[in-house]
Amino acid sequence: MRGRFLSLEGGEGSGKSTQAIFLVEFLARRGISAVATREVGGTQGAEDIRELWLGKRQGFWDPLTEVMLIMAARREHLQKVILPALEKGQWVISDRYVDSTRVYQGIGQGVGLEKVDAVYREIAGDFWPDRTFLLDLPVRQGLSRMHARSTQSDRFEDREETFHETLRQAFLDLATKEGDRFTIIDASQTPQQVRGQIEKAVEDLC
Amino acid sequence: MRGRFLSLEGGEGSGKSTQAIFLVEFLARRGISAVATREVGGTQGAEDIRELWLGKRQGFWDPLTEVMLIMAARREHLQKVILPALEKGQWVISDRYVDSTRVYQGIGQGVGLEKVDAVYREIAGDFWPDRTFLLDLPVRQGLSRMHARSTQSDRFEDREETFHETLRQAFLDLATKEGDRFTIIDASQTPQQVRGQIEKAVEDLC
Repeated sequence: MRGRFLSLEGGEGSGKSTQAIFLVEFLARRGISAVATREVGGTQGAEDIRELWLGKRQGFWDPLTEVMLIMAARREHLQKVILPALEKGQWVISDRYVDSTRVYQGIGQGVGLEKVDAVYREIAGDFWPDRTFLLDLPVRQGLSRMHARSTQSDRFEDREETFHETLRQAFLDLATKEGDRFTIIDASQTPQQVRGQIEKAVEDLC
Repeated sequence: MRGRFLSLEGGEGSGKSTQAIFLVEFLARRGISAVATREVGGTQGAEDIRELWLGKRQGFWDPLTEVMLIMAARREHLQKVILPALEKGQWVISDRYVDSTRVYQGIGQGVGLEKVDAVYREIAGDFWPDRTFLLDLPVRQGLSRMHARSTQSDRFEDREETFHETLRQAFLDLATKEGDRFTIIDASQTPQQVRGQIEKAVEDLC
């Protein structure tokens, strides 16, 4: 049987990578083999594209160029990791996927949701995650978690709070509009509470 | 007045870069400022993408990933070099442009012409060169010119003669089908003869 593809989305500090690992463990206990991966990245080529993309100063790339680079990396990830694993019956858990591009570049940088979706369709056809968990939490809480964890700032963290508010709202709008695919999780809870909510939602899919 | 955008296409050893320089000189003599550029490349970011793309062994990238990378570079080139120059009234002469992607990746690598065109439309809308010169010559002649000129082989030259024959035919098919935009030039002539033919065709545009 074909595996299932789950994505974790949300702002900085929402706990996506931690929950991805929890999910793999949870599925393993049920005898389901799962792969945790991340975007932008997940293959050697895709990680190289990520490095080229983020290695430039903010504003270096035209925003639509960024979308094209991210989609190039996504195509590698799909063809080399995600689709082969699903074919073998494994589940795939991705820390970020196309909804991040829709929100950050499509809405945050003004490329447009329709444009991002159109480019995505060219690399992926009608393929979408079976379920997407939006780890939602107040912007200030996410940013302070990030600052506690690292002195290094990345492309997104440099941006000011209002920009992050826009992104949070964009994620919530998508999740509401595409409610069949999205499950919104209150990520201001403890990691164990978040884990419990995600596992409960995943039960239905097993 | 908006400048004109001319592209030079054709196989290896057809003399595109030489003719690009001749064209800039010809236009300068008529008081037209022109920029010679090349693809994949033409900006710092686009050259970096080119390096990442060609830096991997043949077959490393999924063919559609290659298209996405090339289109990312093309978007940079369009936004930062081609369109601003045309807006200022300069002419732009590009050694290769989208027809190379249509032929090499679209037909040669089997991505499909429709797919390449659809991705191109996402980054460029309805923007196309005002005129494209196809420098056509027999494959053996082009390859022997290449081998005479360099000991280094590139991505395309490694491929066997039959592949180059497919590419040559694909260029000729496009040029025939899109005859309003294309001018086919017999590139087996001397550089000066080729130059004369191109200049004659460009006269109409000045």
